[in-house]
Amino acid sequence: MASALRASRGLRSMGRVAAGPARCSFKYTSVRALANSSSAEASFLPDEPVGPKVVTPIPGPKSQEHIAELNKVFDTRSLNMLANYQKSYGNYISDPDGNVLLDVYAQIASIPVGYNNPALLEAAKSDQMISSLINRPALGNFPSHDWASILETGILRVAPKGLNQVFTAMAGSDANETAYKAAFMWKKQQERGGPDVEFTEQEMTSTMVNQKPGSPDMSIMSFKTAFHGRLFGSLSTTRSKPIHKLDIPAFDWPQCSFPNLKYPLEEHVEENAAEEKRCLEEAEHIIKNYHNPVAAVVVEPIQSEGGDNHASPAFFQGLREITRRNNVLLIVDEVQTGVGATGKFWAHDHWNLQDPPDIVTFSKKAQTAGYYFGNPELRPNKPYRQFNTWMGDPARAILFRAIIGEIERLNLVEHTANVGDYLYGEIDKLARQYPEKFQNLRGKGQGTFIAFDNPKRDEFLLKAKSLGINIGGSGASAVRLRPMLIFQKHHADILLDGFEKLAKSV
Amino acid sequence: MASALRASRGLRSMGRVAAGPARCSFKYTSVRALANSSSAEASFLPDEPVGPKVVTPIPGPKSQEHIAELNKVFDTRSLNMLANYQKSYGNYISDPDGNVLLDVYAQIASIPVGYNNPALLEAAKSDQMISSLINRPALGNFPSHDWASILETGILRVAPKGLNQVFTAMAGSDANETAYKAAFMWKKQQERGGPDVEFTEQEMTSTMVNQKPGSPDMSIMSFKTAFHGRLFGSLSTTRSKPIHKLDIPAFDWPQCSFPNLKYPLEEHVEENAAEEKRCLEEAEHIIKNYHNPVAAVVVEPIQSEGGDNHASPAFFQGLREITRRNNVLLIVDEVQTGVGATGKFWAHDHWNLQDPPDIVTFSKKAQTAGYYFGNPELRPNKPYRQFNTWMGDPARAILFRAIIGEIERLNLVEHTANVGDYLYGEIDKLARQYPEKFQNLRGKGQGTFIAFDNPKRDEFLLKAKSLGINIGGSGASAVRLRPMLIFQKHHADILLDGFEKLAKSV
Repeated sequence: MASALRASRGLRSMGRVAAGPARCSFKYTSVRALANSSSAEASFLPDEPVGPKVVTPIPGPKSQEHIAELNKVFDTRSLNMLANYQKSYGNYISDPDGNVLLDVYAQIASIPVGYNNPALLEAAKSDQMISSLINRPALGNFPSHDWASILETGILRVAPKGLNQVFTAMAGSDANETAYKAAFMWKKQQERGGPDVEFTEQEMTSTMVNQKPGSPDMSIMSFKTAFHGRLFGSLSTTRSKPIHKLDIPAFDWPQCSFPNLKYPLEEHVEENAAEEKRCLEEAEHIIKNYHNPVAAVVVEPIQSEGGDNHASPAFFQGLREITRRNNVLLIVDEVQTGVGATGKFWAHDHWNLQDPPDIVTFSKKAQTAGYYFGNPELRPNKPYRQFNTWMGDPARAILFRAIIGEIERLNLVEHTANVGDYLYGEIDKLARQYPEKFQNLRGKGQGTFIAFDNPKRDEFLLKAKSLGINIGGSGASAVRLRPMLIFQKHHADILLDGFEKLAKSV
Repeated sequence: MASALRASRGLRSMGRVAAGPARCSFKYTSVRALANSSSAEASFLPDEPVGPKVVTPIPGPKSQEHIAELNKVFDTRSLNMLANYQKSYGNYISDPDGNVLLDVYAQIASIPVGYNNPALLEAAKSDQMISSLINRPALGNFPSHDWASILETGILRVAPKGLNQVFTAMAGSDANETAYKAAFMWKKQQERGGPDVEFTEQEMTSTMVNQKPGSPDMSIMSFKTAFHGRLFGSLSTTRSKPIHKLDIPAFDWPQCSFPNLKYPLEEHVEENAAEEKRCLEEAEHIIKNYHNPVAAVVVEPIQSEGGDNHASPAFFQGLREITRRNNVLLIVDEVQTGVGATGKFWAHDHWNLQDPPDIVTFSKKAQTAGYYFGNPELRPNKPYRQFNTWMGDPARAILFRAIIGEIERLNLVEHTANVGDYLYGEIDKLARQYPEKFQNLRGKGQGTFIAFDNPKRDEFLLKAKSLGINIGGSGASAVRLRPMLIFQKHHADILLDGFEKLAKSV
C-alpha cells in the first residue's frame, strides 16, 4: 500500500509545498477509500471538501502576519494554528493561506456537527437566537418566558437517565465548580440536620473571614491525572500536569489512584481487574479517612487531558457503590466525553448503572455548560446560595438545541459508534504493523474517542499538519482523536493514510 | 406636587389593577416631565414606550404559569420577574401578562444600551457574528484570522489608560480568578528570580498534591463588604453576605476594612478623611504582615453588591501608592462599575491616577469579560499557564464592539454623567423632604450609579414594581439604581414620580 500511497496523485496535496501564490487546487481522494469503496459514501454535509489541501508551510505567510498582529495584544504562545472559520466547512478547518486540514481535534473536542453546519446557521439566524444575544438575561432573576421551553426541548431533552434538573453555567470549569458547591451545601445540610435547620451565628460570622465552621474544611476527591478545569476550585481537583497548577494556591483536597490499565486489555484481564480493585479500595480508604471530609468524588469517564486513561464499567460501578455506601456524591465530569463521541450520548451510559450519578457536568460539544442532577435535595435550601448574574447563556443553549436536532436527524451517536469501530479496527491493524508507533491503543467500543501513545508524539502531531491533518495530544505521549460526530468512513480513510505515512517517517 | 401626581391620568397606569383581560393601554406621561419640559426630549430609541404600564399584579397569571413550568427543572426561588424580551424595548422590560416596566436594574446592571437596540440587532445578524456563534474557537489554540481585529476595534478600543493587553474570559467570576492567577504567577516569578528560572522538581511534585511550595500559601487581599464573584477563588475574596459563602470551603485570605463614609459627605469631611486614612493603614499593615503573603489587592471602585459603598479618589490613590510600594498588584474590579454608568467609561477614571492599576477586570455591560493589563511581565513565562478551552466567546466580543459603537454614536458616557447629575439633584431634594426614606444618598458626580438606604427596602422595591418600575437592592438596606446608558431625563422623571409616591406610602 505504501507505494500506492506515494503514487497517489491526491497525496501530493498532503505534502508541504513552498509558500507563495498557491495554484494547486486538485482534489484529494484517499487510496484506502478507493480500495474499500467508502469514497462513494456521501458526506453528511454535501458541500464538504473531498480532502485536505496543504499549499504552504503552516503557519503560512498570511497566518504569520495575523499572528504577529494578534501577539501585540493577546498571548499567542499556545497558538496551534490560525484559522479562517468563514472558509472552514464540515470536518475541514481552513487557514488564511488557503490550507485546508481534516480536523480531528475540533477545537479541543468541542465542535460537534461540523464547521458552518447549515442547521446551526439557521438556528443562529432565528429571531429567538438574536433576541437571546442582544437581550442577555440574568437568568436567576429575570428568566425569559421561553426559558423553560428552551431547556426542555434542548439541554434537558438529552438529560442523563435519572437526572431531570439543570443548573446552567458558562464553561466546563464553572460547571464543575458549581457542582462542587452543590455538593458541599448538600453535605453540610445533612450534618446540620436538614434543610430547615438555620445557620448558626458562629457559622455566619466565621464564613465572612473564610474560617470554619462557616467555611468548612471539606474536600472533593479527584483522581490522579484527572483534569476538571483551571479555576481555583476546579484546579484543586485537576491533577494532569504541573504547568496547569504551579504557583496557584490550592485546597488541601485528596487524590486517588486511577487505574493504570495495560494494553491490549484482553491480554491483561486479571492484572487490570486487580489494578481496578486496588484503586477502588484506595478510594474508599480516602473517603473514610481524609482529614478534610470528602463531600463528593469527581471523575471523568475517560480521563481526557490526562492522556486518555480508561477504566472498565466495573470500576465505575464500584465507585458508584462506594460513594453511595459512604454517603458522598458521585459527580461525573462529562465535559469532554459527553455528547456522542464515545458512541453513547453520555459516556457513562456505557456503565449500565442502576443507580445514576448524583451530578453530571457538561460543556464543550454542548457549546453551553452546566450540571444535571435529579435529587431535589441538591437544590440548596435557600435562594441565592447557587446564583450568579448570567448563570449561563440562552444563546448558547439555543445552539445546543440545534446541535441535538442535528444529532437526531443524522443519527450521529449510532453513526459515531460504527465509524469508531471501523477506525479502531484499522488503527489496530496499523499497530500490529508498526507497534512502536501506535502503543497502548485504547478506546475500543468507545466510538471515535480513540488514543494511542507515540514516543515522538509532538513530532507526530506537527508532521500530521503538513499532511493536512489537525490532531491533538494529551498527557505525556498520547495522540488523542477527537473528530466531530459527522466524521465518516471516508474521513477515517484519509486519517489512516496519514497515519501510515507518519508511521514510516516519524 | 403630590396632588398633581394623583390627579395625573397617566399615573393610574402605575397602580395595580385587577388581573384579567387587560384593556388599559393609555400612555403614561410624568407630571414632573411635563413641568420641566423634558417630556419633549426625544428618546434615543424612537420607538420606546412613553411610560410604564401595569395591568396585572406581578407576576400575573401568564407569568405564574411559566414560572410553575420552569420550576420543575430550574430553581426559581431567586426569580424576580419573568420577562418577555422580544417585547421589551429600550429602557422598558415587558412580561407575558402585558406589563411594561421602566427598568433601572437592567439585568443586574448588565444591559448597556437598551433591550432590542437596533444597532445590536444589526450586529447580531452580521455574518461575522453568525460565524462566531456556530464555529466557536478554542481561542488560545485556534484563534480566527479576525480575532486581533475584533479585539482592537472592540475590547481594546476602550482599554483603560496605560493597559494595552487583554485576557478574555466568560463572566465576572472567572475574569477575576484568571486575574488572580496572573498575580500569583507574577509574584512567584519575582521570588524565583525572573522568567528564566525553571521550576524545581520539588515545586512540580508538590503542586500535584496541592501542597507548597508548588501550590503556595499566598493570598489576595480584598475588602470587607466586597463582592468579586462566587467561584472558589473569587468567593474567597467576596465578603458581602454570609448566604454567598456559607458551607463553601475558602482560602485563608485577608480582608481589610473599607471606608465607612458618613453622608452627606460635605458635612463629614474630616471624619471621612480620618476613616480612609485608618483603612489605608490597615491595608498596608495586612500587606506587610499577613501570614499568607499577599500577591495582589482587589478592589471595586464602588462596592456594588455590598451596598454601594464609596470611597474618595484620595483613598484609591493611596491604595495605588501602598500596593506599588509593597510590590503587590492592584486589581481593580470594574465588573459592575465599568462601561459608562458612573459618567466615565471606567469608574477608576475618576481617580486621576498617574500610575494605572496593574489589572482591570470587566464583564456585565461589556456583555463579555476578561482582564486588561499593561505590564508584559503579567503574561506568564510559559504558554499554557493561563489557558482554557474557550477563553471567552468571540460572539460576545463582537457584541461589545457594537455596544461601544452605540456609546460613541450617542455620546452616552457624557450623557450619563449629565442625566446622573440631574437625577442625583432631584433625589437630593426628595431626601430633604423625606429624610427617613432616602438615607445616605450617594453617588454624586458618579453618573447614574446612585443609591440610598431605606429602612423598609424590600417593601420599597416590591411596591416600585406595582408602580411600573423595576429596581434592585444591594447590601442590607440599599436601593441601588442601575439604569442603562440610554436612560434620559424623561425616564428620570418617571422614576422620581415613583419615588415620591413610594416615599409617601412605604
